[in-house]
Amino acid sequence: MKIAVVAPANRLDPAVAARVTALAGELYPGRVTLAVHPQCFLSSGHFAGDDEARAAAFVEVTNDATVDAVWFARGGYGSCRILDLALPKLTAAAAKKTYLGYSDMGSLLGALYAKGFKNLAHGPMPTDIVRDGGEAAVRRALAYLVDRAPVSVEPDHDGAPRVAFNMATFAALVGTPHEPDLSGHVLLLEEIAEYMYRIDRAFFSILSSPKMRRLAGLRLGRCTDIPTNDPDFAKTEVEVAEHWCKRTGIPYLGRADIGHDAANKVVPFGGMSAVA
Amino acid sequence: MKIAVVAPANRLDPAVAARVTALAGELYPGRVTLAVHPQCFLSSGHFAGDDEARAAAFVEVTNDATVDAVWFARGGYGSCRILDLALPKLTAAAAKKTYLGYSDMGSLLGALYAKGFKNLAHGPMPTDIVRDGGEAAVRRALAYLVDRAPVSVEPDHDGAPRVAFNMATFAALVGTPHEPDLSGHVLLLEEIAEYMYRIDRAFFSILSSPKMRRLAGLRLGRCTDIPTNDPDFAKTEVEVAEHWCKRTGIPYLGRADIGHDAANKVVPFGGMSAVA
Repeated sequence: MKIAVVAPANRLDPAVAARVTALAGELYPGRVTLAVHPQCFLSSGHFAGDDEARAAAFVEVTNDATVDAVWFARGGYGSCRILDLALPKLTAAAAKKTYLGYSDMGSLLGALYAKGFKNLAHGPMPTDIVRDGGEAAVRRALAYLVDRAPVSVEPDHDGAPRVAFNMATFAALVGTPHEPDLSGHVLLLEEIAEYMYRIDRAFFSILSSPKMRRLAGLRLGRCTDIPTNDPDFAKTEVEVAEHWCKRTGIPYLGRADIGHDAANKVVPFGGMSAVA
Repeated sequence: MKIAVVAPANRLDPAVAARVTALAGELYPGRVTLAVHPQCFLSSGHFAGDDEARAAAFVEVTNDATVDAVWFARGGYGSCRILDLALPKLTAAAAKKTYLGYSDMGSLLGALYAKGFKNLAHGPMPTDIVRDGGEAAVRRALAYLVDRAPVSVEPDHDGAPRVAFNMATFAALVGTPHEPDLSGHVLLLEEIAEYMYRIDRAFFSILSSPKMRRLAGLRLGRCTDIPTNDPDFAKTEVEVAEHWCKRTGIPYLGRADIGHDAANKVVPFGGMSAVA
């Protein structure tokens, strides 16, 4: 199978791309071609190329019928900037393939889910190989992409369709025309390096949305590297999640095994799907 | 006239309250009573009292017919937490008085504007007295509250109704049931201490909202203390504002004389109103 790598936000380090390509070749000899798009290595200020270059690369691999899966290179910030440029250009071939990524890629995953795409998943990206124990994350992602390996997938405790997002990324998407309809879904949220007051505010923003009131429930992934609040926030992320769930009438269902770390499990949007 | 001070977010320093009370007495002897509600000095973790205490104090002064104006003590974070507790309890007396504040108070100002309140204004708060040159900010606020002094007011270059908000605060309000209808309005936005990528993301979030597409235009206040982006964002806040205005078809009208600083001018929501 052919897995295309593009970078709708920040630039990928070529050495990282080489490491991941070598690992994929070693794990799946003759089975997997990892096609890292040259756009991944462009640089335009903050971004891996300007909006037009990032959108063009995304549209190119997405509409390419020989590509089985689009694996987002890394997060950072910027995929929301290409939504209006890229999405109107997607063809039927785009809806058939698998998409995998997390963090800033939530803008694209959410917008594609809103368009009715079925094979979207929140999970590790090539850049995760640089984390401590990050090779396991990349192996987990590849095992999902190639074989839908159950061991790669976040255990489903709820029996409902589900989605997963970075909190700040999803809060920005809510209220825009790209917000997906999550009626009856369990929403999994994770966060990194945000003050508790911002986590609290993101819950206000997300769960106050009239559409979100139709969620079947919420699960909280890991919230890591939270800077010290001054004054002390005096509430944990679980207490904050429980507070907003109670306030908005959404069942709080416990923790989820996702986060900005090497242990991040794959969450297939809607539910498990076959390899395209 | 009686001006009540409450703190729907963070706690006010009693020494600051004393300084502002003394200044008001000196400037308007016999004309102004500054009634600093004891709730301002409560402490509950991050907040000036828990949600119930902050909501109760706000409802109390808001429904008190002897109070002419509600002057928010300071920002921080937390006014969004009391919206659903306090707003259903407001009576006819609440709609008659003037409200002044900014930063986190944008949650309340926006939600009250959505409820049809007419005398809302974005401008300096008591806590601003501690800034360099901050006494001028407090004088400006009082001159607005007491006399609607034109010199206190941000010059209106556009002849359209307008509102002003902190960007991050307003981005969180957009998409919730408390989002005001700003059709035909000029939207003034300011920001402090946010990375350029977050300012960019806030513009995406705000201007992508279908309701915001009916704005008459956008003006950019000061964006101060922007931390260094890594990689360098390579775009200024004006370029970012122009980008999103162009992308969403909203006229960019230039700068506005507002910000998290002592020079922050008053922006009456909708347009200038008489003293209640």
